[in-house]
Amino acid sequence: MTDALYETDAAKLAVAVEEARAGLAEGGIPIGAALFTRDGRLLGRGHNRRVQQDDPSIHGETDAFRNAGRQTSYRDTVMVTTLSPCWYCSGLVRQFGIGRVVVGDDQSFLGGQDWLAENGVEVTVVNDPELIELMGSWIEEHPHLWNEDIGEE
Amino acid sequence: MTDALYETDAAKLAVAVEEARAGLAEGGIPIGAALFTRDGRLLGRGHNRRVQQDDPSIHGETDAFRNAGRQTSYRDTVMVTTLSPCWYCSGLVRQFGIGRVVVGDDQSFLGGQDWLAENGVEVTVVNDPELIELMGSWIEEHPHLWNEDIGEE
Repeated sequence: MTDALYETDAAKLAVAVEEARAGLAEGGIPIGAALFTRDGRLLGRGHNRRVQQDDPSIHGETDAFRNAGRQTSYRDTVMVTTLSPCWYCSGLVRQFGIGRVVVGDDQSFLGGQDWLAENGVEVTVVNDPELIELMGSWIEEHPHLWNEDIGEE
Repeated sequence: MTDALYETDAAKLAVAVEEARAGLAEGGIPIGAALFTRDGRLLGRGHNRRVQQDDPSIHGETDAFRNAGRQTSYRDTVMVTTLSPCWYCSGLVRQFGIGRVVVGDDQSFLGGQDWLAENGVEVTVVNDPELIELMGSWIEEHPHLWNEDIGEE
């Protein structure tokens, strides 16, 4: 998508945060993600599109994965996501053998990241205060939409 | 999508098989799925579209889930799939609380169905000989494409 290298976790996470903010600006659920090679080449970026496209299957991670196109190996890739990956997105990471996950915030929601770590995925949690505030206040203001997105009744 | 009721597991599975065969006819990976209410109303049906749309995120189950549109509860729904759901699709079932899964074939591939059962999902395995033959011979003839679809190198 671009020749720039996103070498640090902070640089990688900044792309996911841009995606989350784009989703927010569209009136959507503010969760973004991006898939990189380990050395920092951007393969795909995306964000939750439940509201924008009325599509419940597009979480931040699945959108980034889709936008990265077909790959033959994910072992040397890093999925960076603004929010702890739900079971759906954790299953994606495990099935395709994505080697590393960087989580921006596991305080607003805790998904399957420990299960991933137990199964050999390298998991790094950043807990960026700005992201925690962004997601925490959004959830507080949109409880029904949030529950719909994570399958809570 | 239709007013017909698919009351039996056989009737539900037949829809998923139609989807798998449609995928095969398109030159794609022959896995289909459909989401029903427990009493047999069809909510959405779909099939793997990796080849057709160059989209690695569309497995049979995620396509059926997407095509069912936004739902506020999945507790009383049944995901019927021709092949044992991979971790990605098993994660989908768990996250959204889909209450029941019907698996057409767990001999050609075994995904996360036992994990789902351990976590309260009702899992029924049919092991239809025709489906096992369809998927088994397809995998034998397309090992590279199959490995790509399940993230094996």
